[in-house]
Amino acid sequence: MNNFTLHTPTRILFGEGQIAHLSNEIPVGSKVLITFGGGSVKKTGVMDQVYSALKDFDVQEFGGIEPNPSYETLMKAVEVVKAQKIDFLLAVGGGSVLDGTKFIAAAAFYGEEPWNILQTQGADIKQALPMGSVLTLPATGSESNNGAVITRRATGDKQAFRSPFVQPLFAVLDPVYTYTLPERQIANGVVDAFVHTIEQYLTYPVEAKVQDRFAEGLLLTLIEEGPKALKEPENYAVRANVMWSATMALNGLIGAGVPQDWATHMLGHELTAMHGIDHAQTLAIVLPSLMNIKREQKRGKLLQYADRVWGFNEGDEEQRIDLAITATREFFEAMGIPTRMQDYQLDGSSIPALLVKLEEKGLTQLGEHQDITLEVSRQIYEDAR
Amino acid sequence: MNNFTLHTPTRILFGEGQIAHLSNEIPVGSKVLITFGGGSVKKTGVMDQVYSALKDFDVQEFGGIEPNPSYETLMKAVEVVKAQKIDFLLAVGGGSVLDGTKFIAAAAFYGEEPWNILQTQGADIKQALPMGSVLTLPATGSESNNGAVITRRATGDKQAFRSPFVQPLFAVLDPVYTYTLPERQIANGVVDAFVHTIEQYLTYPVEAKVQDRFAEGLLLTLIEEGPKALKEPENYAVRANVMWSATMALNGLIGAGVPQDWATHMLGHELTAMHGIDHAQTLAIVLPSLMNIKREQKRGKLLQYADRVWGFNEGDEEQRIDLAITATREFFEAMGIPTRMQDYQLDGSSIPALLVKLEEKGLTQLGEHQDITLEVSRQIYEDAR
Repeated sequence: MNNFTLHTPTRILFGEGQIAHLSNEIPVGSKVLITFGGGSVKKTGVMDQVYSALKDFDVQEFGGIEPNPSYETLMKAVEVVKAQKIDFLLAVGGGSVLDGTKFIAAAAFYGEEPWNILQTQGADIKQALPMGSVLTLPATGSESNNGAVITRRATGDKQAFRSPFVQPLFAVLDPVYTYTLPERQIANGVVDAFVHTIEQYLTYPVEAKVQDRFAEGLLLTLIEEGPKALKEPENYAVRANVMWSATMALNGLIGAGVPQDWATHMLGHELTAMHGIDHAQTLAIVLPSLMNIKREQKRGKLLQYADRVWGFNEGDEEQRIDLAITATREFFEAMGIPTRMQDYQLDGSSIPALLVKLEEKGLTQLGEHQDITLEVSRQIYEDAR
Repeated sequence: MNNFTLHTPTRILFGEGQIAHLSNEIPVGSKVLITFGGGSVKKTGVMDQVYSALKDFDVQEFGGIEPNPSYETLMKAVEVVKAQKIDFLLAVGGGSVLDGTKFIAAAAFYGEEPWNILQTQGADIKQALPMGSVLTLPATGSESNNGAVITRRATGDKQAFRSPFVQPLFAVLDPVYTYTLPERQIANGVVDAFVHTIEQYLTYPVEAKVQDRFAEGLLLTLIEEGPKALKEPENYAVRANVMWSATMALNGLIGAGVPQDWATHMLGHELTAMHGIDHAQTLAIVLPSLMNIKREQKRGKLLQYADRVWGFNEGDEEQRIDLAITATREFFEAMGIPTRMQDYQLDGSSIPALLVKLEEKGLTQLGEHQDITLEVSRQIYEDAR
């Protein structure tokens, strides 16, 4: 096990009706800005419940935070925060609203050029508004970590930052809020959480037995519950297990003390940027191919994954690895997410351009061994056609 | 899954040499009181490392906190805190030092009669000194939760309290510090962590798949690593896995949203109080017997435990349950901890007196169904002879 520091201070209020306790989590007398996205939280009635829970607070709202939240939109919220002397932010929505609200929280106290928050990856944040969230879409884990990804529309830049100052104080997780989500968003969320787990698990063994078992537990749960979440949208237990898995997949716990990969995310991001494919879809395209191309370096963990997650423990090693990769692919397909570029009308002709983008960003040594060079990335993309 | 609130704010610094970062965790200028037990931390050199890490702080120390820390001893520390205007407590040791320090932290700000902290189970604590810890004995999980158990020697009372104000801010967990522990303490720690996990797992199913998988992961890890921890005291990876399992077993995570039992602990406590048997030893005596007597009510989870933890998934149900109970017993025995009263020179003649003690304390409806009456407790004790 590698050394690690782990801090998971976000208070979780999990379960049906937990929003009733929302007012206890926000300091009395706070001037609250509710941040949200396209307005589905108003249609579904979640926002009514939020207002009802906050009836004793001075509440304002800022809507319109996009998927892949933009600097341009968020800076408008920062103006509202300053003009209205807001002192608490409540994000109501999914990962994009969470990420955007983290940026608002930090930018409210930042100097002249808040884009520098991204340029410095959050390192020089000294203060932020306190924030919490009511989560409506389980996927990114942003509700209980301190990271965020922001896009600058003007330049097309998409950058990440993290800071302990933007760790949400609390997250209300009510599985019932997910009943009305479109099938595609649930599918994307399950695959996203699955790949988050894989990125922290499928590397090389460091005798971190608890972390391995926890990661395998999340994978097994997502495999069992993911397809059921599509078939039975109002099955509370299923939605609860998916929601809790997604939070646990990226709050720092399973990644503490182990190597991490994240190459699937990096290669996937370029597919989203160039072709507009959903984030989770790009992960479903890249991961099976990356497993195949990196089978030597990941052999130990691939065999453990084959055995403990899929039950493949007979036959020769190559066979077991092949079976595990196929099972992974079939799981994504069962979630309604195709796993080949061709399924998205891509013939692979953009691969050279994707590699140029990776090179421009200096992403030429990816993965837990930093050995996913541009050439290896090319092989992974080629194998994913 | 049941509704839950989960808050795990203690910052974990895990791994060899992490004590070097200790000074970053304590506010600059703090007047620190180091609390410790019998002095083994001085012999092993841990205390030298603590002093070295705190060279820029005004540091005092208070030693002599006993196993089963006593109110009488702790109140002397409270006098030191007040006289010396201490503003940070650093517990260096195991669960008893941690628990005792939590009491000191709360009592320092409490009114006339700090024993009331126990009488009210911590409910009226309004303030406490900030505290952190350097853990040297993995077992109780006290380093990252907000509970403590204190004994009043004058009356023989042993009582628990919990309060968010005594949640440690940080815990330094260096597996190397455990190399020099006596075999019996390691064995006790492994069994204690195992039974903590079981108390939150072996009840009835509520479709909490993540919590179940996490609990099973801890049990599997302790089963694999426990005996190795005895045979290879300086195997870093093994000690690290044991240490991390013990912390994860009782920080609230695996118990969130699931029923809990704790009857094994209650019946065990009386064996410690009456016969001076080590806490973990009493758990090893009670648990296999409780599993047997409660096999109907725990059937679903016993079968899951038999399958996922021990691999028993063939034969009829009674057989699988019997095998799982025997395997549990054999695991404890392999850790050098006998599982029958007779192994501790008890013939069962004290059982009526043990039941009187349970009755005096109102412990007549124990377990996740509150159906462990005095008569059931009698059966459990009888079966454990």
